[in-house]
Amino acid sequence: MTTTRADGRTPDQLRPVTITRGWTRNAEGSVLVEFGDTRVLCTASFTDGVPRWKKGSGEGWVTAEYAMLPRATNERSQRESVKGKIGGRTHEISRLIGRALRAVVDVTALGENTIVLDCDVLQADGGTRTAAITGAYVALADAVAWGTRHGHVTGGKKVLTDSVAAVSVGIIDGVPMLDLPYVEDVRADTDMNVVTTGSGAFVEVQGTAEHAPFDRAELDALLDLATAGTAELTRIQREALERAL
Amino acid sequence: MTTTRADGRTPDQLRPVTITRGWTRNAEGSVLVEFGDTRVLCTASFTDGVPRWKKGSGEGWVTAEYAMLPRATNERSQRESVKGKIGGRTHEISRLIGRALRAVVDVTALGENTIVLDCDVLQADGGTRTAAITGAYVALADAVAWGTRHGHVTGGKKVLTDSVAAVSVGIIDGVPMLDLPYVEDVRADTDMNVVTTGSGAFVEVQGTAEHAPFDRAELDALLDLATAGTAELTRIQREALERAL
Amino acid sequence: MTTTRADGRTPDQLRPVTITRGWTRNAEGSVLVEFGDTRVLCTASFTDGVPRWKKGSGEGWVTAEYAMLPRATNERSQRESVKGKIGGRTHEISRLIGRALRAVVDVTALGENTIVLDCDVLQADGGTRTAAITGAYVALADAVAWGTRHGHVTGGKKVLTDSVAAVSVGIIDGVPMLDLPYVEDVRADTDMNVVTTGSGAFVEVQGTAEHAPFDRAELDALLDLATAGTAELTRIQREALERAL
Amino acid sequence: MTTTRADGRTPDQLRPVTITRGWTRNAEGSVLVEFGDTRVLCTASFTDGVPRWKKGSGEGWVTAEYAMLPRATNERSQRESVKGKIGGRTHEISRLIGRALRAVVDVTALGENTIVLDCDVLQADGGTRTAAITGAYVALADAVAWGTRHGHVTGGKKVLTDSVAAVSVGIIDGVPMLDLPYVEDVRADTDMNVVTTGSGAFVEVQGTAEHAPFDRAELDALLDLATAGTAELTRIQREALERAL
Amino acid sequence: MTTTRADGRTPDQLRPVTITRGWTRNAEGSVLVEFGDTRVLCTASFTDGVPRWKKGSGEGWVTAEYAMLPRATNERSQRESVKGKIGGRTHEISRLIGRALRAVVDVTALGENTIVLDCDVLQADGGTRTAAITGAYVALADAVAWGTRHGHVTGGKKVLTDSVAAVSVGIIDGVPMLDLPYVEDVRADTDMNVVTTGSGAFVEVQGTAEHAPFDRAELDALLDLATAGTAELTRIQREALERAL
Amino acid sequence: MTTTRADGRTPDQLRPVTITRGWTRNAEGSVLVEFGDTRVLCTASFTDGVPRWKKGSGEGWVTAEYAMLPRATNERSQRESVKGKIGGRTHEISRLIGRALRAVVDVTALGENTIVLDCDVLQADGGTRTAAITGAYVALADAVAWGTRHGHVTGGKKVLTDSVAAVSVGIIDGVPMLDLPYVEDVRADTDMNVVTTGSGAFVEVQGTAEHAPFDRAELDALLDLATAGTAELTRIQREALERAL
Repeated sequence: MTTTRADGRTPDQLRPVTITRGWTRNAEGSVLVEFGDTRVLCTASFTDGVPRWKKGSGEGWVTAEYAMLPRATNERSQRESVKGKIGGRTHEISRLIGRALRAVVDVTALGENTIVLDCDVLQADGGTRTAAITGAYVALADAVAWGTRHGHVTGGKKVLTDSVAAVSVGIIDGVPMLDLPYVEDVRADTDMNVVTTGSGAFVEVQGTAEHAPFDRAELDALLDLATAGTAELTRIQREALERAL
Repeated sequence: MTTTRADGRTPDQLRPVTITRGWTRNAEGSVLVEFGDTRVLCTASFTDGVPRWKKGSGEGWVTAEYAMLPRATNERSQRESVKGKIGGRTHEISRLIGRALRAVVDVTALGENTIVLDCDVLQADGGTRTAAITGAYVALADAVAWGTRHGHVTGGKKVLTDSVAAVSVGIIDGVPMLDLPYVEDVRADTDMNVVTTGSGAFVEVQGTAEHAPFDRAELDALLDLATAGTAELTRIQREALERAL
Repeated sequence: MTTTRADGRTPDQLRPVTITRGWTRNAEGSVLVEFGDTRVLCTASFTDGVPRWKKGSGEGWVTAEYAMLPRATNERSQRESVKGKIGGRTHEISRLIGRALRAVVDVTALGENTIVLDCDVLQADGGTRTAAITGAYVALADAVAWGTRHGHVTGGKKVLTDSVAAVSVGIIDGVPMLDLPYVEDVRADTDMNVVTTGSGAFVEVQGTAEHAPFDRAELDALLDLATAGTAELTRIQREALERAL
Repeated sequence: MTTTRADGRTPDQLRPVTITRGWTRNAEGSVLVEFGDTRVLCTASFTDGVPRWKKGSGEGWVTAEYAMLPRATNERSQRESVKGKIGGRTHEISRLIGRALRAVVDVTALGENTIVLDCDVLQADGGTRTAAITGAYVALADAVAWGTRHGHVTGGKKVLTDSVAAVSVGIIDGVPMLDLPYVEDVRADTDMNVVTTGSGAFVEVQGTAEHAPFDRAELDALLDLATAGTAELTRIQREALERAL
Repeated sequence: MTTTRADGRTPDQLRPVTITRGWTRNAEGSVLVEFGDTRVLCTASFTDGVPRWKKGSGEGWVTAEYAMLPRATNERSQRESVKGKIGGRTHEISRLIGRALRAVVDVTALGENTIVLDCDVLQADGGTRTAAITGAYVALADAVAWGTRHGHVTGGKKVLTDSVAAVSVGIIDGVPMLDLPYVEDVRADTDMNVVTTGSGAFVEVQGTAEHAPFDRAELDALLDLATAGTAELTRIQREALERAL
Repeated sequence: MTTTRADGRTPDQLRPVTITRGWTRNAEGSVLVEFGDTRVLCTASFTDGVPRWKKGSGEGWVTAEYAMLPRATNERSQRESVKGKIGGRTHEISRLIGRALRAVVDVTALGENTIVLDCDVLQADGGTRTAAITGAYVALADAVAWGTRHGHVTGGKKVLTDSVAAVSVGIIDGVPMLDLPYVEDVRADTDMNVVTTGSGAFVEVQGTAEHAPFDRAELDALLDLATAGTAELTRIQREALERAL
């Protein structure tokens, strides 16, 4: 592929990705993840106990909430707290992040503990949900380590059975491209978000025809691009977790 | 494939599907769609004019709302009107149905008219969102015909560029299966909803690892099964629309 | 009376009434009731236990919720779940249905069990609240029978002390008329809903001067008409309950 | 009738009723109405113009809102503003008051003006809705006079075609009684609220079997009692309006 | 100071203040407080027990809720119950009243009992929050006496360690003035509410530059004026509490 | 003063304060302000036009919204968007920030433009509201400069008539102290927030007796401390604004 993009990347190239652990002090896991200009603060809050409907199950609970600051985007959006309700997009992404993380959690090994992942977008430039999943996994790993270190997670079984990372892909002017910033995202005919485990299996595949339906060959090309992208993100996550906190 | 299912179907077989047009009298399009015991009432309401943010654009607007009656399911669920808010699942499905239908609508041909699709699940037995999309398309077609007949849609361009149908697929005990009823849905390792156009292109692919991540081969098998299923649903839609109302 | 109405009925004649039991499969009682074109799905959900404020009382609890599908009416109405609140009319009718049914329930005989009646209007053509009460009674009877058959209701006392049925009456151009469809309802000077027991006593009498106050003679005429109407509905309910489910 | 009640009244006797006009200074009509210990502040707010859906109709609009202060009752109830929603009972009574008043308003004579009646229960001892209607009529009359005096109501036609008053009646231990205080209200087998015009016609009749269904003879006795009661209230209203403000 | 105000007062003079105890019958403390035309009903509801988060602490809980009737003001304001949410001003004043009262309550002496102060403005003419605090203290004192008399407060320690009273002050055309009615309030450059104990110490000082920032000398003048005002209010409270209820 | 604090400061010393302009790219003003470990992101959104109620006035509008990320604090708090309502504290602080900024804005010079200040607390360690005001002023200044540079603010009059800064003070163990971190804040007997202009006049003085009422001498000491603190903050703001963006 020789097409060059507005930001100089090749179609199969990620934006610069940085993962900063310990970005705030209060949370058991706190990660600032950046995919280019997209900047998401992912905090993991570890608490003893589980919601009522899980009590006595011996199992833990992991959930996520996603939100955007009002001026993360180019035009200010009204706060959902002021509107008095959560919008459909927010609901959908929160649910996606939660499912993605639960795919790699052994809830029995976690025991009756709860970890809440808060993913707050400080600055948005496309791919906020995939950056959120990628960063939230690292915050989750730090929170699990904290829970183990402080004796809340006992029994010695591994809580995290694998890692998860996510990336967006899309077809623009007929060319499949990896990790779309906002300017590309709005132009994409097809938009797909792919979540994979560190070992390369699929956790979520969500493809949407924005302007034109897509065929099987296009779908295959997007999946190839995405799995290469999440493999690279898995490597970046691993390196971040190997650094001292 | 020789596996037989609890209801006697082979893995690649749809449940009995019926599409009854004109099920209620008030709406411009009114369809009762049944996928086995799943029963969804899809009504299309045609009105002149568009929401404020589309005024003067020359374009129409198509949107959808999905809901379940409280006792559509085995256990009664609380009404969202009583709770005072729409849940995440409801939001997500409403958005999915709206996107799926808009993929085959030429909004310029529709002109400044609005069509709202209400998909109310009267009885749920798995696959409610895919039944809703499949039935809503037929209600939409009837509403577009109504709008044309009554002179609201003018200019002679085709409003519907294609048809859309949707089906669920999943992997159960290693076997990919088509059109899952509730008892299969809860056991599936992977659950995928696929929306295609009548001409066979993809509009939405949403695959989720419920209990175990899935690999590329499994994904391919599910996509094969789904596209055969939506092709069959497309045929059933066409036959329903050919019958006199 | 020799006046003939738009639909060919005499002033003291009900519309065709049908009561279909077992219309959906999941609920303990499920009835589709039709008064002409008015069509209401009444489901009764039987659960062990009672709300917190009745615990330990030895008494059961029966309540009702009424709602309309958005396009049950001629113009689409916004969903109350989307508005985030229940409207006054919905509240008022839900409360009326609940009171009407509780009038024939011996809560001690029911024991600490709860029955929730959901009355969802699929198609509206006047008289939806009276159709709902009439159908809900039949669904309630089926749910009580279910609870008895499954050993949740014990002690052998009769839970239902009588039946209840309801009908609307009104004065149109000076003529008292029974069971008003929408076109008559909007023209009525006085509009009254009457709920009686199977043995003919009053449970609710709600008369409202819509366009002109009414005198005692008119009130008497309306009450005569209504009690004849509910007697006929009582007979139809009894026949429906005598058929095998 | 020789039965004497706890408060010394005969069954057909009203509690002491007082109507104080001009109780607060800001509203165009402001009445404190007392039925024994029940004390309701009724204010009428007159404004130019009508809601959007009545604009250009040449007609005015009259509506009402009812509420209770949290400690009007014996046990404190939570504020509906804090709960974030209006309860069913509040909705129902607000609608009743509005309908009752509109029955005597000639909206064409009112012209495109709006009058909102706020009925706030300061102290509750049964019959709050009937006291509210009775007091609100007087506040309405003062607001109409204000609007006429200040040149907002023009054309010279009478805005109020009659007066309205309301009273509760009920059957206690077999005896029909007028104007029930709280201690009687909770013991009544049947509870009825009756609204009549000054000329004695019915505007609303709402009878409910609280503990036992009622027959036609009981209904007749209650209606007799109520119409005598509202006639007396009509006289009290007239006297109040004849006093200088 | 020789400036005379529209209502004839000198700058350092309170409006006529009246405190009527036992204004309603149901509450354990019920006070109508009037600062000129400002009229606030303050009721204190005493209940056994405390909110969940204080259970077992041995301490009681005192809280307050402030609200305005819709037509307390010159223009009708929409009910917060109808809007479905509490406004910022209401929240802020409720919190202020609660804090002010808790400053003089020994929660250990109160024991695990709760007192809720409801301050409902019946008529507003400036200074509603300061009138509310001043009246609520008297209602609180009556409720504490009730609790003691009825054996809910035991142990013999004084629950109320002091009294509290509040007044507004402001600078108008360069002159510091005490207890501003509405017409002065809107013209004030600086607006300050001061809450003091009976012994003269500060509980709250809230000064706001409405039109022009203020300097230290102005602040000092306002504090002098306010402390003289609350001393006078303390005397009026004491006299009210010395009268027989 | 020789008392040393846990963090080594003298009683009259601010925590390290940093103001980073241009912290995010989308907003017209974007400032990260830090008072020790308290970290608030203040963005200013400049838009043409004003709310409906200011249209045609020739005046602009400046308002503020404050919020905390769920895990800014030591224990995770539930999102207000999820609760469906804004809490009292949030309301109160948002209003305070808005008032403080409007005190230095000449709305006529701003013209019919709106600036919204969003103050989101990323990490909380006491003094979030005072940090928010101090940072928001700088973001506001940048937004005004942007509006001027882009021709939205015309006429050449100065929009900002002065600067504003805010600091908290409190009395701990009898010692007045400046700029309290969380550990000191919870121990303070009296807690005061003071907002001043750059020229040293008061905009807001809000003092609250948390555990013990305070006397005039203590109030004076706190005011002295605060005005020295805001003078220092004014200097830091000025330096930040002098740096190139």
